[in-house]
Amino acid sequence: MIKTLRDYTFGGKGVAMDLQPQWIVGFVDGEGCFYVGIFKRKDMTVGCQVQSEFVVVQHEKNIQILYALKKFFGCGKVCPNHGSRKCFKVRKKEDLLTKILPFFERHSLKTTKNIDFLKFRDILLLQAKNEDLTFEGIAKITKIKNTMNTRGEQLSEPKIESSST
Amino acid sequence: MIKTLRDYTFGGKGVAMDLQPQWIVGFVDGEGCFYVGIFKRKDMTVGCQVQSEFVVVQHEKNIQILYALKKFFGCGKVCPNHGSRKCFKVRKKEDLLTKILPFFERHSLKTTKNIDFLKFRDILLLQAKNEDLTFEGIAKITKIKNTMNTRGEQLSEPKIESSST
Repeated sequence: MIKTLRDYTFGGKGVAMDLQPQWIVGFVDGEGCFYVGIFKRKDMTVGCQVQSEFVVVQHEKNIQILYALKKFFGCGKVCPNHGSRKCFKVRKKEDLLTKILPFFERHSLKTTKNIDFLKFRDILLLQAKNEDLTFEGIAKITKIKNTMNTRGEQLSEPKIESSST
Repeated sequence: MIKTLRDYTFGGKGVAMDLQPQWIVGFVDGEGCFYVGIFKRKDMTVGCQVQSEFVVVQHEKNIQILYALKKFFGCGKVCPNHGSRKCFKVRKKEDLLTKILPFFERHSLKTTKNIDFLKFRDILLLQAKNEDLTFEGIAKITKIKNTMNTRGEQLSEPKIESSST
């Protein structure tokens, strides 16, 4: 039976709802982001560090969805984003490799976001082989990264960002 | 088996993919909108017209998703939106009442968008009883409409828009 407005109350952190895989795929097709940052780091031999992350951002009124994603994947954290937005973020390489990748390999995204996911996977697999610690690996990763999240247009030159940390 | 980039080619209008209900719920939780417009119409007895619509907007590169939604619901149309965006839109009252409402009653949205859906449903049910042709009905509908899609904040005064048609 459909919920009424009166019934439609949200719980806090303690009562994270259960999500179904296909709902997650649809939601991530809309709201998810597979992001790779390459930040300058003078203390690293190659002069930079690769940071891959899977992120879902929501207005804080939907924070229960972010806790439900954290519960489902069994990793990541819910943290502040810009303004009244919060995000569910997975950054640990091991979690990305053993939890996020296998899920989206088993349950393919249906939008062009799947192309970003496949590039994200390629970069993570290079990171898993520590190729992000070599100049050649960084060049490969930069080349892939610069074709991601471009909404169609492609960057012609590799771009390394300044570290925000 | 996961698709490779080479395999990941999109078909045109003729090969709309099959979607699963939970994927649709997740995607609409992220990208869908239940919109009610109240437009000035001098030729109507009540001076305005209520236009309810269910809309999903996507970059044109994902137009195959919009055709897949049209195929799934068996109604609506795919049409241009702003710039390089396209939308799947259902406006016919009968389609909204017999196809869109029952789907989201059977498969509840998980974000606060469900609250908008329930208000949208209330307005549609008033429209189904032709209450949008009476001043009292328009007042009821305006009151509900002005609490929708507000991202938390609520408008204090009813607002009637100028017709764009």
